[in-house]
Amino acid sequence: MKAVVYKDAYSVAVEEVADPAITDPRDAIIKVTTTNICGSDLHMYEGRTNVERGKVLGHENMGVVAETGPAVENFRAGDRVSVPFNVACGTCRNCVDGWTSFCLRTNPTEGVDGGAYGYASMGPWDGGQAEYLKVPYADFNLLKLPQGTTHEADFTMLSDIFPTAYFGTDLAKVSPGDTVAVYGSGPVGLLAVHSAYLRGAARVFAIDMHPDRLRIAGEFGGTPVNIADGDPAEQVIEATGGIGADCGVEAVGYQAHEPSGQERPELVMDWLVRSVRATGRLGVVGVYLPTDPGAATKAAQDGRIGFDYGRLFQKGQQIGTGQCPVKRYNERLRDLIIAGRATPSKIVSHELPLSDAPGAYDKFDKRVDGFTKVLLHPAA
Amino acid sequence: MKAVVYKDAYSVAVEEVADPAITDPRDAIIKVTTTNICGSDLHMYEGRTNVERGKVLGHENMGVVAETGPAVENFRAGDRVSVPFNVACGTCRNCVDGWTSFCLRTNPTEGVDGGAYGYASMGPWDGGQAEYLKVPYADFNLLKLPQGTTHEADFTMLSDIFPTAYFGTDLAKVSPGDTVAVYGSGPVGLLAVHSAYLRGAARVFAIDMHPDRLRIAGEFGGTPVNIADGDPAEQVIEATGGIGADCGVEAVGYQAHEPSGQERPELVMDWLVRSVRATGRLGVVGVYLPTDPGAATKAAQDGRIGFDYGRLFQKGQQIGTGQCPVKRYNERLRDLIIAGRATPSKIVSHELPLSDAPGAYDKFDKRVDGFTKVLLHPAA
Amino acid sequence: MKAVVYKDAYSVAVEEVADPAITDPRDAIIKVTTTNICGSDLHMYEGRTNVERGKVLGHENMGVVAETGPAVENFRAGDRVSVPFNVACGTCRNCVDGWTSFCLRTNPTEGVDGGAYGYASMGPWDGGQAEYLKVPYADFNLLKLPQGTTHEADFTMLSDIFPTAYFGTDLAKVSPGDTVAVYGSGPVGLLAVHSAYLRGAARVFAIDMHPDRLRIAGEFGGTPVNIADGDPAEQVIEATGGIGADCGVEAVGYQAHEPSGQERPELVMDWLVRSVRATGRLGVVGVYLPTDPGAATKAAQDGRIGFDYGRLFQKGQQIGTGQCPVKRYNERLRDLIIAGRATPSKIVSHELPLSDAPGAYDKFDKRVDGFTKVLLHPAA
Amino acid sequence: MKAVVYKDAYSVAVEEVADPAITDPRDAIIKVTTTNICGSDLHMYEGRTNVERGKVLGHENMGVVAETGPAVENFRAGDRVSVPFNVACGTCRNCVDGWTSFCLRTNPTEGVDGGAYGYASMGPWDGGQAEYLKVPYADFNLLKLPQGTTHEADFTMLSDIFPTAYFGTDLAKVSPGDTVAVYGSGPVGLLAVHSAYLRGAARVFAIDMHPDRLRIAGEFGGTPVNIADGDPAEQVIEATGGIGADCGVEAVGYQAHEPSGQERPELVMDWLVRSVRATGRLGVVGVYLPTDPGAATKAAQDGRIGFDYGRLFQKGQQIGTGQCPVKRYNERLRDLIIAGRATPSKIVSHELPLSDAPGAYDKFDKRVDGFTKVLLHPAA
Repeated sequence: MKAVVYKDAYSVAVEEVADPAITDPRDAIIKVTTTNICGSDLHMYEGRTNVERGKVLGHENMGVVAETGPAVENFRAGDRVSVPFNVACGTCRNCVDGWTSFCLRTNPTEGVDGGAYGYASMGPWDGGQAEYLKVPYADFNLLKLPQGTTHEADFTMLSDIFPTAYFGTDLAKVSPGDTVAVYGSGPVGLLAVHSAYLRGAARVFAIDMHPDRLRIAGEFGGTPVNIADGDPAEQVIEATGGIGADCGVEAVGYQAHEPSGQERPELVMDWLVRSVRATGRLGVVGVYLPTDPGAATKAAQDGRIGFDYGRLFQKGQQIGTGQCPVKRYNERLRDLIIAGRATPSKIVSHELPLSDAPGAYDKFDKRVDGFTKVLLHPAA
Repeated sequence: MKAVVYKDAYSVAVEEVADPAITDPRDAIIKVTTTNICGSDLHMYEGRTNVERGKVLGHENMGVVAETGPAVENFRAGDRVSVPFNVACGTCRNCVDGWTSFCLRTNPTEGVDGGAYGYASMGPWDGGQAEYLKVPYADFNLLKLPQGTTHEADFTMLSDIFPTAYFGTDLAKVSPGDTVAVYGSGPVGLLAVHSAYLRGAARVFAIDMHPDRLRIAGEFGGTPVNIADGDPAEQVIEATGGIGADCGVEAVGYQAHEPSGQERPELVMDWLVRSVRATGRLGVVGVYLPTDPGAATKAAQDGRIGFDYGRLFQKGQQIGTGQCPVKRYNERLRDLIIAGRATPSKIVSHELPLSDAPGAYDKFDKRVDGFTKVLLHPAA
Repeated sequence: MKAVVYKDAYSVAVEEVADPAITDPRDAIIKVTTTNICGSDLHMYEGRTNVERGKVLGHENMGVVAETGPAVENFRAGDRVSVPFNVACGTCRNCVDGWTSFCLRTNPTEGVDGGAYGYASMGPWDGGQAEYLKVPYADFNLLKLPQGTTHEADFTMLSDIFPTAYFGTDLAKVSPGDTVAVYGSGPVGLLAVHSAYLRGAARVFAIDMHPDRLRIAGEFGGTPVNIADGDPAEQVIEATGGIGADCGVEAVGYQAHEPSGQERPELVMDWLVRSVRATGRLGVVGVYLPTDPGAATKAAQDGRIGFDYGRLFQKGQQIGTGQCPVKRYNERLRDLIIAGRATPSKIVSHELPLSDAPGAYDKFDKRVDGFTKVLLHPAA
Repeated sequence: MKAVVYKDAYSVAVEEVADPAITDPRDAIIKVTTTNICGSDLHMYEGRTNVERGKVLGHENMGVVAETGPAVENFRAGDRVSVPFNVACGTCRNCVDGWTSFCLRTNPTEGVDGGAYGYASMGPWDGGQAEYLKVPYADFNLLKLPQGTTHEADFTMLSDIFPTAYFGTDLAKVSPGDTVAVYGSGPVGLLAVHSAYLRGAARVFAIDMHPDRLRIAGEFGGTPVNIADGDPAEQVIEATGGIGADCGVEAVGYQAHEPSGQERPELVMDWLVRSVRATGRLGVVGVYLPTDPGAATKAAQDGRIGFDYGRLFQKGQQIGTGQCPVKRYNERLRDLIIAGRATPSKIVSHELPLSDAPGAYDKFDKRVDGFTKVLLHPAA
């Protein structure tokens, strides 16, 4: 089959690889209909990880069941499904507790819990930027979708970024009537604005410095706060009559940049702590890593982020963090899409055939031509 | 009346000051029967704050109602009461939400919510290391106790450290069957061990380097982990079969010291993040401050604590912080004392007359003669 | 001043009564701008209660502060406010726990907790269908509104039925993506449909037998289920593919009628238990009473409702009940109105001067001329 | 192998039946070391169900893994395990949500969710009062125990009644400091007393009319309330200074008897509603059924229980019900047993070889010779 494979820094290729095959009675093979390029794929693309050459990339996958192992009961060939990016066994303590993003079985990497498809250090699982994808523990991992092709661009957000964004608002305990500050208007930040309203927020501030992203945030009902217009925490505080937001979401991570262009790992946490009122909650889905030799500061290379923790304590704030357990949310979000209440596809910029993947990675990485969220269709 | 007043760095005196008087119909005057010296009082004693000279100290107070304003309905002269250290109005948004530690009215200090008796930067309220104490919003702030003198040394823990310790276990969501790591075996840490068991913990590790404190932790059922025996996070991980604790409490703060004696502000947070398994919760009641010119590092002087936030994110942990809203817990803890199930008085080292306060401050500050928790009795 | 007073069964009058006066330093006097007639007022109107003659009616009140006692700090003359129907002291155990509908102080009636304005057996408090209203414990009870006259018809729903409806959805734990069955499309049921969507429901069934009410439910996005079309539980089960709703709200009460016209106290509970899937939650805000000599069955006269509790147990469902603690929700709902996300005024059928109250009671009681929700304006 | 099989009303026998065999790759075979007779087994024994003749009984099982199917990863031969009474697939919506007692796959009975071993109308699963037991979906269903034979009589409570009792206290949201009323001091009621204290209750009333049961309740720390001494609700209200308990557990069910001996299905619910203060929560684990031709009243035969629902509403109480999802709690309770903090074996009255089962059923059914909780050991 055709698949996008990692070649080297700044190089991926569409190559012929072996078809995946069922090797465990609980496996299923999915014929991929849509698979997205994620911002986190660029981390591998830029050569900043130890991903092996030849790895099939892609963890945002959906498609149609092609074949099932003999112990698969919930699905059969022809079923349309979404595949959470987490590979989860369904029976370890964390999976049973709903923390599929911390499955104790699917990632052999020392000291790291939780597997994923097509990603560095997340276990041996091939990705879905390909014609077919093998899904282990299929009964547990797959989510059934309505048959046909409706809402394809909405449903494809269910594998990762829509649940991830929603998770941020859940960690922040966004509740009806709340005022929410969302830092970052990339795909996850935008869907966090959307999610906050789905949870009943009264006002959501979308904070970024790219006018085109802020415009989409506005389409989701967000109030744009442009960092270029001044300290964003001050802007939020002023817009809330000096009180601050009730809670906030961090959808940027440690690779944050000052408007001046300087990378500053603690920048967004500092803003967030100041933007949110005392006793407020912070949902952190922007990525922080324990080690990254390429990080902007010596401290951040070791995972140390010297944000204003003293102020956070003084304000009695609470933080939730981590990778999203997609299965906890994807069924509910699917139903909101079906009901017409959620439309995450608004953030899609391009839909391309799989063969265009190399060019798409290049342009997405360079942020040119409006490449913000790319869907690949292997069968197109 | 007699009261302990702040004179200067390393100097307090028992002096004659004006009796407090009712000035608002919701005030009450308490005749203090027991008032404790808190570890945080030493911060003022050592001259590291801007507390004004002549301030009456003491925020851990209990006694008997002497007089009530005309709008006080819940109490009358003769009632025995505990006084939460938080001064709370009862009608601002935070008080109504149960966050009396962040009352929006009782502290005029810019940017800081929440008042307290006898403390620097916590509003104009005189302390209770005195014969009498004025309590505003008495109907809201006071907690009724059984008449008489029973359990005096237990009940006096209800004004601050028992609820504060319990708050740590609540932020950490300690649940029946949990394994808990409690960093610090000072008064708050010890009562966090006690609280964790009250909430149903199966095993609680008490982590400290002072054998006498670890011995008391053992009396509360805790498993002592002596930092002198090696990296405490490693010890916890080993004792849990490589898994780590389910959740943890930080009862030390940024003034933490390596066994070598070196102060390292991020030390305990680092240990805690490593000690607790992925998805676990951390309750932080050890103090962190946004500014402290005397802090050990330049960063910490500005509240910046460069702990391993990358690892925390990778483990998907959650943090709760801040000063305890005593009223949220003190009634329940009182009932556990009355029922004989809670005995926080185990940590008391000395009971002295008020006149001994200067010497007690001195010895407590120097950690000599076993001065760990001192109760003062103004009427003695 | 002018006020609506209870005269006798089926008789109210607008009469001159004494102006309310401040008698406690925590009182405030409100100049009423809008006061609604509630369905529960008809219970008194029909002579089925022991309400005393001359009682000023009206518990759904809003207005402008006219005068405040010396201990009122949060409000001053001129502030526009909503008055929750619950009279709450703010310092008893239930008030502190957020259960203002069960205040232990404001209702002297034996065995009943919780006071209300202008209502039988709910304490000595005069109602607000009048030019002025006295509000005790004003700092705790009043909710500030934006100055002026904007959203008057929306804000007037904050005193009772919008929070009551929302409470039903909170008891039912309506969560994003849920399918919800709401029994009854009277004012509370309609706003429960609205509330369910504010909490993120995917689909809400509005169940009633009056087409005009079902039409309004449709305006709130609800899917109408007409009881006249057949067993409503069957309709819900069929519309959910045989599964049943995820949760449900009971907004009818024990005075429910079969389509045939027969009153059957357990009718709606039975339907609800069957409509909701196993493990689902039921929020019951339709009224049930421990005694009502006029109830349809001997059992119901003693509060006994023989619904299918065996099936409820077999399905592992959970029930929440009771009168709404308005203060728990009104601030959040106010903010949603201000943000333009909530528009409860859609249910208003009439706005009349206070002098029209007698006619309005009569027509509302007879359900004629489309009288479903009537607002009275004392100053008009 | 030898197994206890149902023969007819009031007749079971130990007979030779076919050994269970692995038929699905996810199955495991357990060599049973301990299996208990449950009070609910008597329902079948007395001929009040449609259980088929020849059915192997027994749903409270533990033992050692004898054999595993090829897709079982968490267990291997020799592992000591507890088997929850619920048969759960682990991948249906309810199982994933933690409601293994309402598994949508394991029970083909129309309109009833949730399977169980060896029970009428709970699916085709043979029971464990036998030498061997087949467990489907073994990775999901089994709970690992420490190797060896320690705590056998405690661990055997993990398959049903200890989690069931704990579930009652969880539904009632028993929290530290609470006063709790537990109706019924049979095995489940006694362990509800134990569970309430594990959750931090300050006082627990154990309500029954059998002095021997009340004595065991006292061993668990409970305050005995003997129904023979007068109305138990009055006793609870008096013992709480007129307030009532904070929450309560119903561990009796609809087959409740007045002290006079008359069966009255609504008796315990009525007492419970009165015993618990307004806003309190009720956890109902005593069984109620939608149909039982042998029930005491015509209404109860159809599942209708005419308790004082009007009063429950007036008090704003909340109810949780249903069969316990054992897996939600058994790991935590196991850890409390290992830590020495839980000792459910206190309730055991007899330990017998499997061959004594017929006599044990007979005596247990007649409540003679102190037969209250019987453990059977197939290998003895």
